[in-house]
Amino acid sequence: MATELQLVGAGLAAIGTGAAAIGVGIIFGNFVNGALRNPSAAASQFTNAIIGAALAEGLGIFAFLIAILLYLK
Amino acid sequence: MATELQLVGAGLAAIGTGAAAIGVGIIFGNFVNGALRNPSAAASQFTNAIIGAALAEGLGIFAFLIAILLYLK
Amino acid sequence: MATELQLVGAGLAAIGTGAAAIGVGIIFGNFVNGALRNPSAAASQFTNAIIGAALAEGLGIFAFLIAILLYLK
Amino acid sequence: MATELQLVGAGLAAIGTGAAAIGVGIIFGNFVNGALRNPSAAASQFTNAIIGAALAEGLGIFAFLIAILLYLK
Amino acid sequence: MATELQLVGAGLAAIGTGAAAIGVGIIFGNFVNGALRNPSAAASQFTNAIIGAALAEGLGIFAFLIAILLYLK
Repeated sequence: MATELQLVGAGLAAIGTGAAAIGVGIIFGNFVNGALRNPSAAASQFTNAIIGAALAEGLGIFAFLIAILLYLK
Repeated sequence: MATELQLVGAGLAAIGTGAAAIGVGIIFGNFVNGALRNPSAAASQFTNAIIGAALAEGLGIFAFLIAILLYLK
Repeated sequence: MATELQLVGAGLAAIGTGAAAIGVGIIFGNFVNGALRNPSAAASQFTNAIIGAALAEGLGIFAFLIAILLYLK
Repeated sequence: MATELQLVGAGLAAIGTGAAAIGVGIIFGNFVNGALRNPSAAASQFTNAIIGAALAEGLGIFAFLIAILLYLK
Repeated sequence: MATELQLVGAGLAAIGTGAAAIGVGIIFGNFVNGALRNPSAAASQFTNAIIGAALAEGLGIFAFLIAILLYLK
């Protein structure tokens, strides 16, 4: 039993990885929606969208890191 | 019992895979909505939608990877 | 007990399959909404909606695959 | 059994990390959407978006901290 | 068994910490969106956004406190 419960934890952490994808999706969904309303400004705001996506993606990578740590332990 | 709890973990990780699909859905939902409002700009923003979808899809693939690792372990 | 916990995992994976349906629903909900606002452009954007739905559906199929693998193991 | 349940806790905490990414995504999604509607004011509001994102990201880091503490205990 | 289940509880509390970040995100997301529509009024409403965010952040801190208390017990 000793080495099995950690794998349940790894699976739980993977849920967090997927949840972060929702955050990334909200950023890019709004970016694409706005860019289609005002295409001329899209290039200037793409950097901001990437900054936000990096912050959200980073939290997802943290959750993935926990999953990998639990899997390998 | 030793080899069974990891399968619970694999099932949990599959929830994360599905959650990432919500993120992908938000991106393409907003893209299609905006593209129908302004079809002439759709081609220029499709690349940005794909970039965002790749980031979200990637987090979903990470969760799927955890599920497969837990299944095969 | 050995063959029962995997069935819990299969049930959990099915939650992921259902979550992916939310993503697909967001895409086609927005498509239909936009297409009713601008029916003449609907045909040109249907392909993009299908591309997005395929990405979201794929993540759902991955979750379904995990569920089937856990069921058959 | 003594050292394994904490790893389940670490996995649960990682879900919180991912959930915080949804909050970050909502802030930047709205920022990018609004910035594309009014690009000239984007620079003045970017600071406010970063302040909000820092508050949300901070909560995600707290959840990550719990996950790491439980993993290392 | 007595000292391990509390660590599962700490992980569960950390999910609450992350969920509070969604609330913070909704407040600042809407603030930034509205501020870009009417930038001249943004400064006068920023205090109100901070008050709301403090209330939401406070609940996340409470959940974090529970997680820490469970971890240290």
